[in-house]
Amino acid sequence: MFKPFRRITYVEDALNIFLKNIRVKVKETEIIPLEDALNRVLGEDIIAKYDIPPFDRAAMDGYAVRSMDVISASEDNPIALKVVGEARIGYPYRGVIGKEEAVKIDTGAKLPEGADAVIPIEYVNVIGNNYVEVLRAVTPFDNVSKKGEDVKRGTIILKAGILLEPWDLALIKSVGYRSIKVLRRVRVALMSVGDELIEGFDETTIREGKIIDTNRFMIKSALKKFGCEVVDLGIARDDINEIKEKMLSAMKYADMLITIGGTSVGERDYVPQAINLLGKPGIIIHGITASPGRPLALSIINDFPIVSLPGFPVAALIDFMIFVPPIIEKILGIRGERILPRIKAKLGRRVFSKPGVRHYVRVKLSKVDDELIAEPIRITGSGILSSIVRADGILEVPEDLEGYEKGTEVDVILLRNRIGDNDEEDL
Amino acid sequence: MFKPFRRITYVEDALNIFLKNIRVKVKETEIIPLEDALNRVLGEDIIAKYDIPPFDRAAMDGYAVRSMDVISASEDNPIALKVVGEARIGYPYRGVIGKEEAVKIDTGAKLPEGADAVIPIEYVNVIGNNYVEVLRAVTPFDNVSKKGEDVKRGTIILKAGILLEPWDLALIKSVGYRSIKVLRRVRVALMSVGDELIEGFDETTIREGKIIDTNRFMIKSALKKFGCEVVDLGIARDDINEIKEKMLSAMKYADMLITIGGTSVGERDYVPQAINLLGKPGIIIHGITASPGRPLALSIINDFPIVSLPGFPVAALIDFMIFVPPIIEKILGIRGERILPRIKAKLGRRVFSKPGVRHYVRVKLSKVDDELIAEPIRITGSGILSSIVRADGILEVPEDLEGYEKGTEVDVILLRNRIGDNDEEDL
Repeated sequence: MFKPFRRITYVEDALNIFLKNIRVKVKETEIIPLEDALNRVLGEDIIAKYDIPPFDRAAMDGYAVRSMDVISASEDNPIALKVVGEARIGYPYRGVIGKEEAVKIDTGAKLPEGADAVIPIEYVNVIGNNYVEVLRAVTPFDNVSKKGEDVKRGTIILKAGILLEPWDLALIKSVGYRSIKVLRRVRVALMSVGDELIEGFDETTIREGKIIDTNRFMIKSALKKFGCEVVDLGIARDDINEIKEKMLSAMKYADMLITIGGTSVGERDYVPQAINLLGKPGIIIHGITASPGRPLALSIINDFPIVSLPGFPVAALIDFMIFVPPIIEKILGIRGERILPRIKAKLGRRVFSKPGVRHYVRVKLSKVDDELIAEPIRITGSGILSSIVRADGILEVPEDLEGYEKGTEVDVILLRNRIGDNDEEDL
Repeated sequence: MFKPFRRITYVEDALNIFLKNIRVKVKETEIIPLEDALNRVLGEDIIAKYDIPPFDRAAMDGYAVRSMDVISASEDNPIALKVVGEARIGYPYRGVIGKEEAVKIDTGAKLPEGADAVIPIEYVNVIGNNYVEVLRAVTPFDNVSKKGEDVKRGTIILKAGILLEPWDLALIKSVGYRSIKVLRRVRVALMSVGDELIEGFDETTIREGKIIDTNRFMIKSALKKFGCEVVDLGIARDDINEIKEKMLSAMKYADMLITIGGTSVGERDYVPQAINLLGKPGIIIHGITASPGRPLALSIINDFPIVSLPGFPVAALIDFMIFVPPIIEKILGIRGERILPRIKAKLGRRVFSKPGVRHYVRVKLSKVDDELIAEPIRITGSGILSSIVRADGILEVPEDLEGYEKGTEVDVILLRNRIGDNDEEDL
């Protein structure tokens, strides 16, 4: 029989080792309208089909001129030009500027044919309706935004692998695209394991002491938040064959599998057993230094990754947050390095932690005299979901510390990007 | 004619003044399945329909007993009990424990009828198959998680106004709900203003010097990211009547309006004119200390809020990010205070800023020797979208500073929660 927890792995090592072992890559793309591409991963390099700006345009309000006509202009030697028309954004001057002619022009308007520079409005005297005196010389392309100055046609403006934000979509639209290739979503199979689990409250809950499978529901919702397609395999009973069957269908239809429950050391730990029966290398990591979150298993079967989360809700959520997003990003090949948004706060109470264990302490944040205070939530049970619901953030206490003194400035990982939204005193 | 920019308003004052003037509140709710409620705003207080745990259960592995039977038990005076059965999670013992009887029980399993405490496994000697000797006394409910210990039936577990996260949904499910009331989405009407604008690239772009309306596209996408329903009113020409018509239909179908373009001081600033013709109080703020983002207008017409963003893309985006999310949250009455995720970084180059102006400097972040360095992006034009696309974050330089020295530790507002995903050297 499989002997788990022989070696507990440091949280960061576990993540690095597992990421190194992941070979799955989503390569299939789909072409979708640009307006549907928010938060999708770009599946092709975007090459500008047009220059930006697409034509030479005025960079200031003033008069479009031929620079050679005003080469000797100065305050002492004003040069008179005939104003032959006007150019506004979207309403270009349709003629050609000839010798000693000028066109009144707005910032952003297309430079008329024949002109090669703009005299700013403050360097001309307007003489009646049809003439201006130019008080300063310009050289070619002075006060002109040249065609292609921002983006040159034919250059790559965005590389495949970018997670698309609103401004990316706007830039892509500006160089001539209406639809683009994106990577298909990652397909994550999901199953819970346990004879005691039921889908929702019914009369057996109380009579039989059954447990509602809220974990699978929570993780499914979190996966959707990360843009995954969820292949929901439901609840497997504590039966090696049933678990193996579901794992095999996960391997057929999904890019990875998340199991919940059945990972701790005990008589009925069928998940590790099933994994090791299915193929090589099997379980790579079993047991990490996280608290809560210790009984995590990370496995690979013929390049197919399996993340086995513990059955306690808070442990499941914390292990999910540490491991799953980086795995999904690796599978999609998303460019760049993820940064977890953190906020500085002062610890309102001493926090103890066992050396060698990475504690994830749920904290409430509040503002006291404009200072952010992180108050650890007193926990009555490790599996209690309401402790996460009441928390604003998570304070990570690394393995090499024995805790933090009251008053220490700490980094809090935000759970909601909000504070004070579910204060206990309100409830 | 309307005289704008008589008084430039500090960014924070502008936001506070405008928020105080907002009276619109979304009150209508809709009942939706719990699994669709992610990122929606809870529209009712959630009252627990059941206790959690829903029954007394073992808090440790051991033996369920009647505490009165073992009141005098100790190492020196072990008390023998008959083991009459077993209780596992989801598989309760179906009988009633009688005098001097015990039931083997797993953590989390339902406490059998008759029993009132659990003796941990380490305080018994197992005698053959049917007897245990108890080595320690217990009092009622020792090592038992009592029914309702985490959540009491009938109590409020979540208050209306919470923005729902995966763990909230799981908790709601665990107290017996399958569907819930959420607030309907905020309806935001959106229009661009300008004769020069067209929907997408066509032959007029270059010939006529027309501009593709990428701003509306970007803001629409950003609104969707914030969970809004967008009422897209398209492009209005520079015509007061057309702008007024669109504004009137926004007031009919939406909770607020965002206009883009036509807000700066010039001959064709039809947006402020149209607003002041439509009703009172009209424009409240016109011109703020933001750079980019100065020509913002904030208006109220008969309690209907209008945010008028400038036409330059970067200015539009920055003003959007400062003003629109808090307004949406106020309209929805979302509980708690929003915290913008920021990250500390060391400034790689000196940043200058004009006192009295709040500068929003686009920066690239990179890791040098495990230290995060923020490098300001050199900008060639204020309207250039590609400067946002290349940036990882925004550094805010407050009005009362003249900039930051190289090496200063600064807070960077993250644009992507990632770094290095669109590095220039790659492109």
